[in-house]
Amino acid sequence: MKIIELKETITASNDRDAEVLRGELKVQGTLLVNLMASPGAGKTTLLERTIRDLGQKYRIAVMEADVDSDVDAKRIELLGAKAVQAHTGGMCHMDAGMTRRALDELDAPESDLVVLENVGNLICPAEFDTGAGKCVMLLSVPEGDDKPLKYPLMFSTSDALLITKIDVLPYFDFDIEACKARAKKLNPNIAIFTVSSKTGEGMEEWEAWLSDAIDSWKK
Amino acid sequence: MKIIELKETITASNDRDAEVLRGELKVQGTLLVNLMASPGAGKTTLLERTIRDLGQKYRIAVMEADVDSDVDAKRIELLGAKAVQAHTGGMCHMDAGMTRRALDELDAPESDLVVLENVGNLICPAEFDTGAGKCVMLLSVPEGDDKPLKYPLMFSTSDALLITKIDVLPYFDFDIEACKARAKKLNPNIAIFTVSSKTGEGMEEWEAWLSDAIDSWKK
Repeated sequence: MKIIELKETITASNDRDAEVLRGELKVQGTLLVNLMASPGAGKTTLLERTIRDLGQKYRIAVMEADVDSDVDAKRIELLGAKAVQAHTGGMCHMDAGMTRRALDELDAPESDLVVLENVGNLICPAEFDTGAGKCVMLLSVPEGDDKPLKYPLMFSTSDALLITKIDVLPYFDFDIEACKARAKKLNPNIAIFTVSSKTGEGMEEWEAWLSDAIDSWKK
Repeated sequence: MKIIELKETITASNDRDAEVLRGELKVQGTLLVNLMASPGAGKTTLLERTIRDLGQKYRIAVMEADVDSDVDAKRIELLGAKAVQAHTGGMCHMDAGMTRRALDELDAPESDLVVLENVGNLICPAEFDTGAGKCVMLLSVPEGDDKPLKYPLMFSTSDALLITKIDVLPYFDFDIEACKARAKKLNPNIAIFTVSSKTGEGMEEWEAWLSDAIDSWKK
């Protein structure tokens, strides 16, 4: 597994760079998903289960972005999926230039789906278009149902919200309906799924949405 | 309760500004604690319990920093403590200039302890000296014991680490000893406490450390 060291792309035109990258990926038929969440919300565990469930149907590759360590990319490679670990050099997010470099290193041009597991952070990643076709965010039950109030941009810019770790719902004071209403108020079109990567609850609906996104991207 | 809108201080000398602020607070006998963690790690709940336990002994005031909302400052005011809600204008951290402005608005010069509840983020706040006398970070059990590997700077720059939500330990795969060892490897001097703000477990040790820090600051 490769580890690459990235630096922020010095360009004033991240939005344009992202559009160009998205266009290239569209032509190529590869859906890039930008997966965002707080640290420890369960991004890698969700990915592991998703790859197990959809890995026969689609060619899936993963770019793990972290300030440091390679624990996540190693977990993904255990499943037989292509993975690259990108270190952001202390940066709190990925931009389009960094994403392009990581994609080049991934060496997976034939993929149907490439997932960028962004740095664990509910703020900065939402500010930078990476060129992804879909933005997906996770909010885990232990984090609390008030997070849409505090981190509105992340909820506004995501195509889908996965409320994760619903298996521990009995041990936390988390109001699913209140959380959904807060997210919908910020973003009426957001698709919301409640899932547990541990028990598998809700995974079918999420994976149906993702499969549909992959198929639609090729049209 | 006051809400103030802040912008990043345009200065190349944040470290110097932070030293000056720290010096002023030292003369004044006010300990500023920079409380940092991921979103939803339990910062406000810890503060609520700490204020209830130590509020008779010390004059405590709180600055809540968030991208948006005022839910946290409202919770603190319910306890009768002075609180100000600072909005960071989308910024992912507080710097020394922003902290000074929030302190001015707080209007609490007589405080023994001022807690800055920083923006929920394990990366950016660690990069900016706020002028605090002590940096304290929380890592909640649901986030996972691998976080020191991924966010080393936060662990390196904190004087104390509180492993929070230990009441839900039975429902998560979290190795306390492994987490402590990883944190100590990055920062041999870090004080580590395992607490549950819900059940009160471990609060006595944390509050003894904090009381000692407040008393020492006045010497």
